[in-house]
Amino acid sequence: MDHKFHKDLPFSAAEYARRLSLTRKAMDVAGLDALWVTDPSNMAWLTGYDGWSFYVHQGVLVLPDQDPIWWGRNQDTNGALRTVWMSDDHVWGYADNYVQSPDRHPMRDLAVRMAGLGLEEARIGVETDNYYFSAKALMVLTETLARAQFPDATALVNWQRGIKSAEEITFMRRAARISEKIIDGLVERVEPGIPKNEVVAEILRDAVMGADGHWGDYAAIVPLLPSGTDAAAPHLTWDGRPFEKGQATFFEIAGCYRRYHTPFCRSIYLGTPPDFIRIAEAALIEGLEAGLEAARAGNRASDIAHALAAPLDRAGIERGARCGYPIGLSYPPDWGERTISLRTEDETVLQPGMTFHFMPGLWMADWGLEITESILITEDGAAECFCDRPRQLYVKP
Amino acid sequence: MDHKFHKDLPFSAAEYARRLSLTRKAMDVAGLDALWVTDPSNMAWLTGYDGWSFYVHQGVLVLPDQDPIWWGRNQDTNGALRTVWMSDDHVWGYADNYVQSPDRHPMRDLAVRMAGLGLEEARIGVETDNYYFSAKALMVLTETLARAQFPDATALVNWQRGIKSAEEITFMRRAARISEKIIDGLVERVEPGIPKNEVVAEILRDAVMGADGHWGDYAAIVPLLPSGTDAAAPHLTWDGRPFEKGQATFFEIAGCYRRYHTPFCRSIYLGTPPDFIRIAEAALIEGLEAGLEAARAGNRASDIAHALAAPLDRAGIERGARCGYPIGLSYPPDWGERTISLRTEDETVLQPGMTFHFMPGLWMADWGLEITESILITEDGAAECFCDRPRQLYVKP
Repeated sequence: MDHKFHKDLPFSAAEYARRLSLTRKAMDVAGLDALWVTDPSNMAWLTGYDGWSFYVHQGVLVLPDQDPIWWGRNQDTNGALRTVWMSDDHVWGYADNYVQSPDRHPMRDLAVRMAGLGLEEARIGVETDNYYFSAKALMVLTETLARAQFPDATALVNWQRGIKSAEEITFMRRAARISEKIIDGLVERVEPGIPKNEVVAEILRDAVMGADGHWGDYAAIVPLLPSGTDAAAPHLTWDGRPFEKGQATFFEIAGCYRRYHTPFCRSIYLGTPPDFIRIAEAALIEGLEAGLEAARAGNRASDIAHALAAPLDRAGIERGARCGYPIGLSYPPDWGERTISLRTEDETVLQPGMTFHFMPGLWMADWGLEITESILITEDGAAECFCDRPRQLYVKP
Repeated sequence: MDHKFHKDLPFSAAEYARRLSLTRKAMDVAGLDALWVTDPSNMAWLTGYDGWSFYVHQGVLVLPDQDPIWWGRNQDTNGALRTVWMSDDHVWGYADNYVQSPDRHPMRDLAVRMAGLGLEEARIGVETDNYYFSAKALMVLTETLARAQFPDATALVNWQRGIKSAEEITFMRRAARISEKIIDGLVERVEPGIPKNEVVAEILRDAVMGADGHWGDYAAIVPLLPSGTDAAAPHLTWDGRPFEKGQATFFEIAGCYRRYHTPFCRSIYLGTPPDFIRIAEAALIEGLEAGLEAARAGNRASDIAHALAAPLDRAGIERGARCGYPIGLSYPPDWGERTISLRTEDETVLQPGMTFHFMPGLWMADWGLEITESILITEDGAAECFCDRPRQLYVKP
C-alpha cells in the first residue's frame, strides 16, 4: 500500500478485512454490484475514516473486486489520507465550490466518477434511511446515472457490525471505565443549588480526560439530565438552573473510546424519594435483572423485552417504548446501531459478541427514572454488564 | 394558548411571529400550501423546540392559516410540550414501534395526518437537502400521498434566518464571551508534553461553564485542533498524544449560548515559527482586515472573498475553499446556516444584521493555520467582530 502519512489505525488489518468480507457477502446476497455508504459510523467501521466532516456530502464506495474508495470534499481528503487503511489513490476529493452551492451538487461529481468505474448500468445499493443521505442526493444520482439502479441498502452495513470482535470489545471496556468515572463524579457532585450546566461541564471534562490511562473521545450524544417533572422528557439537554431538593434527575451518558460507546444511566434523588419512585425503582431493578438473565445466546431480542415487562406490569408501569438497541462505534446524532430493537415484536436471535444498551428508561407523564446497563451477550450464561456500579437509584438525603 | 407546563422560551412572542411571517411569505412566493421542516435548526428557530431527538424522524409542519404543528416520536412530545410556543394540541406524537422498524416507517404516520389536514392534493415543500430528511422519508411521503406534490424547499427557512434580530444578537454576544474564554484558556494551557485530550477536556468545561453569568450550551461541532502536518486536515478531532515543540496547532471552537454560536479560531505555535508560517500569518491578517473592511452593507459576499484573496495571492497562498458562511442558531452536525458562502461566485448582497464566520482557514499540503472572526454586518462601516482577542498567531517560545 502506498501511504504518504503515518497512520495510527485503531484496528488490525485482519479486522478491517473481516469487516469488508462480511459486507461483500451481504452485497452479494442483495445482488449489488456496488454499495454507496454515507453513514459516518459505517464509513469509519469499514475504512477507519475519522473526522467531523459528515456535515457535507461524503461517503465510501464498496466494490467487490477492489479496495473501498473514500470520496469527499477536497479539504477533507487530508483527513482521509491520515485515517483510512486504503492506499492514497483510493481517496478522492471534489472541488470546494460544490459545497452548499445552489448551482452544482456534489453527487454529480460522484455519479461521473461512478460512471468512470463502469457502473453506468450497475446495481448500486444506497442507504436511503441512514444518516446523512439526503433525498436530493438520491435524486441527483438517479438523474445523472439514469441507467443504473439504486436499490435500498439501508442498514446493510449496520447489520454486519452487530457481533463485535475481541478488538472492539477491548475498546468498549475502555469506554466503560470512562462511563463509571462519569457516574462516580455525578454521585459526588450533584447537590441542591448547583447549576446544571456546571455539572455537565464536569461530565464532559471527565469524559474526555479518559480513564485507566486511555484518552476519552466525544460521545455521539451529549449528556441528558432532566430533573423532576422534566424527567418525563427523555431528550432534553441542560440549562443553568440549579438542582433542587425533592427531585429525581436521570443522567444518560456514555464513555467513548475511539468512537466506541458504552452508554450508562443512573438516577439521583436529592432528598427522600416518595413511595411511587421507590416502587418504580424496585420494579425496574427486578426487570433489569430478569432481562439480563434472558439476554443470552440463542434467546431472542423479544425475550429481554418480555422479561423486563413482567415486573413493571405488576407495578402498574407501562413504558410504551423499546428497551434497548445495539451499541458500538458511532458518530452523532446517535449512539445506537439502528438494527435490532429490544421490543416484543423483534425476533432477532441473540448471538455471542452482540452488545446492547439495555435501556428501560421510564418516562412517565410527570416524572422519569433511568437505570440502565450496557451489556455483552456471552457464549453461555446471562449477559455481562460492561460497567460495574450499584444498580440503584442514588439517594442523597 | 393552552400549556400544561411552564415554558422558558428563549425569545419573545413577537420574535417567533416575525419568523413565522417571514417563512409564510417565502412559502407564498414558492407557491406552497404547506412546508415540512426537518432541519433541527429550522425547527428550533420557528418553534423553540430544543432537544437531542433529531436522530429519529421528526419535524414541524408550517401552514398558512394555523400555528405550526410539531410532530415526532411519542416520548419526545414531552420535550416539545416543554419547549415550543404553540399550544399543546399542536404537538403530535407517533408510536414507538415506528422507530427504526423494518416494517413501518414514521413518515406513513405523518402522511396520514397530512391527509387528515386536507393536504392530499397539496403542494408540500420538503427540505430535500437539509439535515435529517432522508431519501426514504421522501419516498414514503410520495407513495402515501400520491396526489400531493413535494417541491424542493431546501434552505427556504435557512434563508429567512440570515438577518438576526436584536434578541438573537444579544445571544451571540453572550456566546462570544464564551469563545473568548475558551481561547484565553488555550493560550494559557497549551504546552509541549500536555496530552491533547486534556486540553479538549478543559475547552469543553469552559464552554459549558459559560461566561459573564450566562451558562454554556453544547456547540454543534466538537473542538478541532490538529497539529503540525495534521493541521492540513481541517476536520480531524483529537487523541491522547501530547503537544510538541516546533508545531503549529489551530483551534477551531465556538462558544454557544442557547444554541447560538460564535465560532472563533486562533492558532498557537510552540517554539519559534519558521519563516513560511510568519509570512502566511502576515498575509492572512492583512486579508482578514481587508475582508472586514469589505464586509459592509450593500457590498456582496464575493467582495469579502476577493479582499481576502489579494494579500494571500501576493504571498503565493492559494486556498481553494470558501472563506466563510452565515452563523447563528445551530444543531449538530454543522454550525453554518448553509445559505450564503463567502466565495468569489456568490453575489448575495450583504445586509445589516447578517452574521458570518469569516473563516479563511489555511489547510495546505503539510501545515495549517486558522485565524478567524465571527462578524456582524452593521448599518454602515466595516463589519463588527463579535470577539475581541488579538488577531495573531500566538507564539509560546
